[in-house]
Amino acid sequence: MITVEEAEKIILANAGDYGAEIVMFDEAAGRVLFENIKADRDFPPYNRVTMDGIAIRYEAIERGISTFTVRATQAAGDMPVNIEQPDECVEIMTGASLPITADTVIRYEDLIIKNGIATLQAVKVKYGQNVHLQGSDRKQGDILAVPGQMITPALVSLIASVGETEVRVKKVPRIAIVSTGDELVPVNAVPAPFQVRQSNSYTIQAILRQHGVTCGMLHLPDDPDKMKDKLQDALYHYDGIILSGGVSAGKFDYLPKVLEELQVEKLFHKVSQRPGKPFWFGRSEQGIPVFAFPGNPVAVFLCTHRYFLPWLRATLGMPGGEALYAVLDNDLTFNPALNYFLQVKLEVNTRAQLVAIPVAGNGSGDFANLADVNAFMELPADKNEFKKGEVYKIHLISPIYST
Amino acid sequence: MITVEEAEKIILANAGDYGAEIVMFDEAAGRVLFENIKADRDFPPYNRVTMDGIAIRYEAIERGISTFTVRATQAAGDMPVNIEQPDECVEIMTGASLPITADTVIRYEDLIIKNGIATLQAVKVKYGQNVHLQGSDRKQGDILAVPGQMITPALVSLIASVGETEVRVKKVPRIAIVSTGDELVPVNAVPAPFQVRQSNSYTIQAILRQHGVTCGMLHLPDDPDKMKDKLQDALYHYDGIILSGGVSAGKFDYLPKVLEELQVEKLFHKVSQRPGKPFWFGRSEQGIPVFAFPGNPVAVFLCTHRYFLPWLRATLGMPGGEALYAVLDNDLTFNPALNYFLQVKLEVNTRAQLVAIPVAGNGSGDFANLADVNAFMELPADKNEFKKGEVYKIHLISPIYST
Repeated sequence: MITVEEAEKIILANAGDYGAEIVMFDEAAGRVLFENIKADRDFPPYNRVTMDGIAIRYEAIERGISTFTVRATQAAGDMPVNIEQPDECVEIMTGASLPITADTVIRYEDLIIKNGIATLQAVKVKYGQNVHLQGSDRKQGDILAVPGQMITPALVSLIASVGETEVRVKKVPRIAIVSTGDELVPVNAVPAPFQVRQSNSYTIQAILRQHGVTCGMLHLPDDPDKMKDKLQDALYHYDGIILSGGVSAGKFDYLPKVLEELQVEKLFHKVSQRPGKPFWFGRSEQGIPVFAFPGNPVAVFLCTHRYFLPWLRATLGMPGGEALYAVLDNDLTFNPALNYFLQVKLEVNTRAQLVAIPVAGNGSGDFANLADVNAFMELPADKNEFKKGEVYKIHLISPIYST
Repeated sequence: MITVEEAEKIILANAGDYGAEIVMFDEAAGRVLFENIKADRDFPPYNRVTMDGIAIRYEAIERGISTFTVRATQAAGDMPVNIEQPDECVEIMTGASLPITADTVIRYEDLIIKNGIATLQAVKVKYGQNVHLQGSDRKQGDILAVPGQMITPALVSLIASVGETEVRVKKVPRIAIVSTGDELVPVNAVPAPFQVRQSNSYTIQAILRQHGVTCGMLHLPDDPDKMKDKLQDALYHYDGIILSGGVSAGKFDYLPKVLEELQVEKLFHKVSQRPGKPFWFGRSEQGIPVFAFPGNPVAVFLCTHRYFLPWLRATLGMPGGEALYAVLDNDLTFNPALNYFLQVKLEVNTRAQLVAIPVAGNGSGDFANLADVNAFMELPADKNEFKKGEVYKIHLISPIYST
């Protein structure tokens, strides 16, 4: 049996690399960038007017000039209109390119414009005001984003603004989600009293889809030969496999043996954690990782978040996330010498602390509570007593919403 | 000019309701539930064995019996096999339904099984151990989820387990994203020195897609007649409109007038905030909301998160989110009597506090920084000095990752 940290380390050492592909920039959100995005021009690309009003030369203010002849009107997108005299101005709109003969913008609110004459009201004018200077945010050639960055809506905007209609992103691995166990019936079936409906595969699928991964789904019966055929096929057609069920010590848990026969090397079996202790992880000769999670729904849910998603992020070249912490809100005793992943609901108190409120559960089979849970708190194996107010690491499973 | 709170209140009072539709359960993640999900059976539906081993009657332990004849082997999904005598047992697997003639499970690790006889090792056996009792998590008929809940992967699992192959969800409004401004050229064009590429619409589209909204996109030229035609069309074909640009005080900012001519009632124009002060909001005679954001990219980004998304959540019948808070990490001065939305990068310190590190920016036109920002901190209008260590409200724009 290995520790959670050891398990994580082995999994991350087996991150894959499925190359890159090109997608349209407006379909790229959620993908992971695999090129540098460079500024093709300065940001802003010209001295950008930030208020509607008039553009003047500051020299005029210094000379005490307070009325200006409006030479022309320049909208955003118009070619800049120059002024020739200090007592001239251009009526100019937000977003327009400041004429090189002007340097300062006075907003409408500080002016009266009548019969082509703009009269400055009694306000202080500062040199260069209301102008966003060319290149003040970024210079042409600056790198705006680098490989490994998730393409967020903000990054879509940057990519659009530099004219990159096509963008190189990491290819996402194709994952087979495989359920096992003869006690499972399809969702649309009426189970016998001793059967349950399949649900783990759909949970995994939904989590993976949130991360842009499309999946194949298959079910293995508790029969070693059929298992072997189907798994062989999956190893051939997919980049990774997630199994649920079939890895505990049971008489019908053929999986580890079948995987061995398929030359999938066992890298570990059993992690000192609850839930999910029987977790088995291996790698085929072709390098296909096999995550074999135990079958109980809470373990599947935890293991997908705690192990598969970090593997996926590493595989896509994303940097490792920062550890997150929360304050435990209840006293708690947990005796086994295992890392205990406590189901919690996170809140943020008015001292800006993340507070983890345990969601009472009946152990790893109790998944009815998971709908109320938005994180797991990782309680260390070397303690048994956990006190309200103590701080432990958490693993977010769904975002915290603000108003 | 109204306050941020007043603006929010007016917007939420104009939440829509686009009815419900039926989707397949495995396509329902990310949608908002519009029915109760009820337990069709108890959770668990039977006394569920949680360890591989043998099922016995505890009475045997009380009588001092420590060897058991294995009557049969029962896999998960098998019909339960009864025992008749206290010195009998059933070899039984995790997930199986405990026979009614048994009450306790002893795991393999505490047994030696040889020639059909299971011999208990020197361990303490507790009545009912390793059994997850029928109905101990939820009872048949219990409500597992209610209208207004986002369908998370965990909820998909619950929906599958109760056999709901089809699920009733709220219809998502169809939104038209409309850009304005003659300074904008398409992303694939080479802008003149005084032009910029369109990017706001793509940012909005990417944010809305993250929330399951598909959008139409159109661009309005700075010509009142053409604007009117196109907007009339959009008001007819969409459930809501988001505009960017064209609502400041500029000479070519025809939008407010055109909207008025189209009988779109102005509910407010200008909010005491930076960025995004010129924000205009109204509603057509048919009840279509029109969000007209100012054209600068940071304002668009903020307003979409601060105003449109809460409207969307209210429209989908989701409860309002809890306020989130973070600790400001720098001293800061902001003089205008406006709510200042500071761009920040959030981290969680080892005291479990959310810390907001300001991302230096050159005001609302500077969107190159947005790729590094994962929240806006909402600084109150009635203060000018903000100190490191003070706590203020934040609005998350992207999730915080954990390892």
